[in-house]
Amino acid sequence: MTKEWKPDRLSEQPIYKQIVQYFEEQIRNGELPPLSKLPSERMLAEDLGVNRSTVATAYAELSASGLIISKRGSGTLVGEVNQDYSSGRLPNWNRMLIAGTLLPNVPIIQRIAEETHHKNLIDLATGQLSPELFPNEQFQHLLKNQHFDHPLSYDHPHGNMKLRETIAGHLKTYKKIDCTPSSILITSGAQQALHLIIQCLLKPGDAIAIENPSYTYSLPIFKSLGIKTILLDADENGVNPQAIHDAYMKHRIRMIFLGSAYQNPTGAVLHSERRKKTLSTAYEFGIPIVEDDPYSLLSFENESAATLKSEDSHGIVIYISSLSKMVSSGMRIGWILAPKQIIERLADARQQIDFGSSIFSDWLAREFLKSDFFDPHLHQLKIELKERRDILVSAIEKHLPGLVDYTVPKGGIHLWCRIKPAHHDEKLFNQSVDKGMIYTPGSALGSNKGFVRFTFGRAAKQSIDTAIAAFSEALLLQK
Amino acid sequence: MTKEWKPDRLSEQPIYKQIVQYFEEQIRNGELPPLSKLPSERMLAEDLGVNRSTVATAYAELSASGLIISKRGSGTLVGEVNQDYSSGRLPNWNRMLIAGTLLPNVPIIQRIAEETHHKNLIDLATGQLSPELFPNEQFQHLLKNQHFDHPLSYDHPHGNMKLRETIAGHLKTYKKIDCTPSSILITSGAQQALHLIIQCLLKPGDAIAIENPSYTYSLPIFKSLGIKTILLDADENGVNPQAIHDAYMKHRIRMIFLGSAYQNPTGAVLHSERRKKTLSTAYEFGIPIVEDDPYSLLSFENESAATLKSEDSHGIVIYISSLSKMVSSGMRIGWILAPKQIIERLADARQQIDFGSSIFSDWLAREFLKSDFFDPHLHQLKIELKERRDILVSAIEKHLPGLVDYTVPKGGIHLWCRIKPAHHDEKLFNQSVDKGMIYTPGSALGSNKGFVRFTFGRAAKQSIDTAIAAFSEALLLQK
Ligand SMILES: Cc1ncc(COP(=O)(O)O)c(C=O)c1O
Ligand SMILES: Cc1ncc(COP(=O)(O)O)c(C=O)c1O
Repeated sequence: MTKEWKPDRLSEQPIYKQIVQYFEEQIRNGELPPLSKLPSERMLAEDLGVNRSTVATAYAELSASGLIISKRGSGTLVGEVNQDYSSGRLPNWNRMLIAGTLLPNVPIIQRIAEETHHKNLIDLATGQLSPELFPNEQFQHLLKNQHFDHPLSYDHPHGNMKLRETIAGHLKTYKKIDCTPSSILITSGAQQALHLIIQCLLKPGDAIAIENPSYTYSLPIFKSLGIKTILLDADENGVNPQAIHDAYMKHRIRMIFLGSAYQNPTGAVLHSERRKKTLSTAYEFGIPIVEDDPYSLLSFENESAATLKSEDSHGIVIYISSLSKMVSSGMRIGWILAPKQIIERLADARQQIDFGSSIFSDWLAREFLKSDFFDPHLHQLKIELKERRDILVSAIEKHLPGLVDYTVPKGGIHLWCRIKPAHHDEKLFNQSVDKGMIYTPGSALGSNKGFVRFTFGRAAKQSIDTAIAAFSEALLLQK
Repeated sequence: MTKEWKPDRLSEQPIYKQIVQYFEEQIRNGELPPLSKLPSERMLAEDLGVNRSTVATAYAELSASGLIISKRGSGTLVGEVNQDYSSGRLPNWNRMLIAGTLLPNVPIIQRIAEETHHKNLIDLATGQLSPELFPNEQFQHLLKNQHFDHPLSYDHPHGNMKLRETIAGHLKTYKKIDCTPSSILITSGAQQALHLIIQCLLKPGDAIAIENPSYTYSLPIFKSLGIKTILLDADENGVNPQAIHDAYMKHRIRMIFLGSAYQNPTGAVLHSERRKKTLSTAYEFGIPIVEDDPYSLLSFENESAATLKSEDSHGIVIYISSLSKMVSSGMRIGWILAPKQIIERLADARQQIDFGSSIFSDWLAREFLKSDFFDPHLHQLKIELKERRDILVSAIEKHLPGLVDYTVPKGGIHLWCRIKPAHHDEKLFNQSVDKGMIYTPGSALGSNKGFVRFTFGRAAKQSIDTAIAAFSEALLLQK
């Protein structure tokens, strides 16, 4: 609630008074309607970095003026006394909060977002790169040196034409994928690509298959839209094609969602035999595969991992990729490659949803991809990520000897671990947070208990060992 | 389909051969799956700017190799002969095209997008500014001179904090609206703001009210989600509050969507008495108002128009605005102002949908709003728009004397006309397009026949008169 505001310590006004004014303003504005909840004294004191007694004084003053009330059991609420209800009533906001078609994120995902924003934790939870791994100077250079002369108007419904040309070239060079710009739709990251496909090409009651575990598992959109998700078992060589066969026989699945190489969370690469078999099974039944590939270029070996799309001779793969895990996640550039009539349909939907991607992001994405920066950046990034992976593996061997099972990932940013000692998933998570580190509990990404995802791309290099040491302390407490 | 590709006239290769290769590549890629439709010879020739006989030669060659087939009644289709189906079958793409939860845009809206992209028409249809009205040099200046030093990571779920601070200041200065940054969510334009509210706060079966006519009327999202829309009659003074009263009594509406000043399409400003009455009626029944305000600063009179939000003493208005109609539509920056718990809910949904707005757009929006450029730009823009409005009004008086009814808008970019002579809406539209101009038929924006929207912000100043002359010729043909 008060994530951002901080009292001004240089001000003449006492801090408690600033807190009083901060809430007063929001209550009078209607930003905090009657009966909305205020943070507890303890939490607020922590957030603002002030003494608890300071918050207590502020709350006491707000109470005295009737602006807030303390209710046993429900904490501190905004009061109703100053409202004149004689002529009407307030909207039932609480009903609206739970009404929507789009379900909220699951609590653990919300909690990770909260904790990583609030607290100073070593972050092995968030699936992105550490700020210094992004090409910061290169972007500054492009911004200063490339001339922006696009119109400031809405751009083409499929995304900027020149960017799509550049992406077609990029796909050819780096992934051996052939396509033309009109089969590409620029999206706001792989995330929007997934959402568009699910909202436009599937209907309530349809069954689809996803890997267990996978990033896709964490998305509430399937449930929001009444789409049945069938879980496909996957191991360190990716999904088992037999599982696809069985899922089709049993559930007539209409689409298969697969992570490409260095899958999130397992780090797995689909074995080449399995890749062939997956494609032929899908083709046998006429099921399109949605291949989500944000990581395949992040290989720690000599060559990049192959994609399903590059071997898709029948055009049954809808291919998604993104710049988020290589270039910038904040710029929000991803894309979909699909048959033209599908692209037209998705582009129409995207117009409705948000009128297309930002001209500035499209421009910079293109400038970066076609510049001489991309290749050396990618090269350097892989070296850095590999080093972090090695640090993580050493830390695991040092602090958790014999306590976990895992496969060393050959690329990407994630490592998936089974925790062998008996433990309680939630307690382990809470205690790890208390010890100063955070990870993503496996339950957010798959149906089996006892797993965790450690992301090695996000934290500072020097802090990875400390994080795993903290985790092992938390694990010890489980006994 | 072939919107973008053009044959290379300087190439050694004959043009028909280039066309052959263009299609060959896409058929082999799977971008054009078997049985997908190719454009007619006439349309393709027009799009590519070549002779029809050139296209005929190309199609003949493609036919000869079996890549395409001509079917009487269904035109030219991609063939199936080169496909080996012995081991499988293709996905049923056609079923998927009509499956989705999110319905496609209505045909007339799709058609306008098509026509304005394809043809060189005078555009009185698209609801945005002419490229030269945007602050192009100012953005170039900011890009070259402001230092970008944000992390390239995902930003805050509510959008960049500094941008939200700047917007809070902007709302205070320009619209007398008080708020704090934590009650603001940055969105990808007003469009995404509307979508988020509809997807998160309403459920299937809910009834809501919208103005007739209005921009909101054109959105398929209500129907997609099974939300019932009750139409509120509106005139040149905006919505009639009695209609809100009646809609609540009859349908227990749960939300009211209102365009703010210089409404799209009527250009109406809600009269101050009605504004008060609208607020008190909504408050009486506890119905939240969603106020969509992209235009209120574009006033041609001395002062800006008032908003509902600035007079909302109970916090029942969820307020939406956007930079699209003043600064840049392509940058995709809009925002929502709402009670905090609503903002938290919408921010969570936005994370799911696309992981937030682009850091570059957020950065530039802030730089522009806090720069010395904003105020003079807005001032100049209003002068230019007023001039265009006057040109449009003169053209109407000259070319359509006594043939239309309209109210001269006092701001914004749209003028709404009732066409008095009997006519057929679709024929009038087609013939106007044939004559070289395009507008938005009223049926896209409201339930009554015989209206059109002329947008005067989009076309080049010199061409507005020509457009209305062309329209009057088309109207003459209706007799
Ligand atoms: C497999 C996968 N898909 C999609 C996403 C979404 O990424 P973005 O929208 O930033 O491209 C992620 C991010 O963690 C991911 O791991
Ligand atoms: C009333 C109204 N709302 C919303 C929009 C969407 O605009 P944007 O998403 O670019 O802010 C428009 C655009 O025409 C509009 O006229």
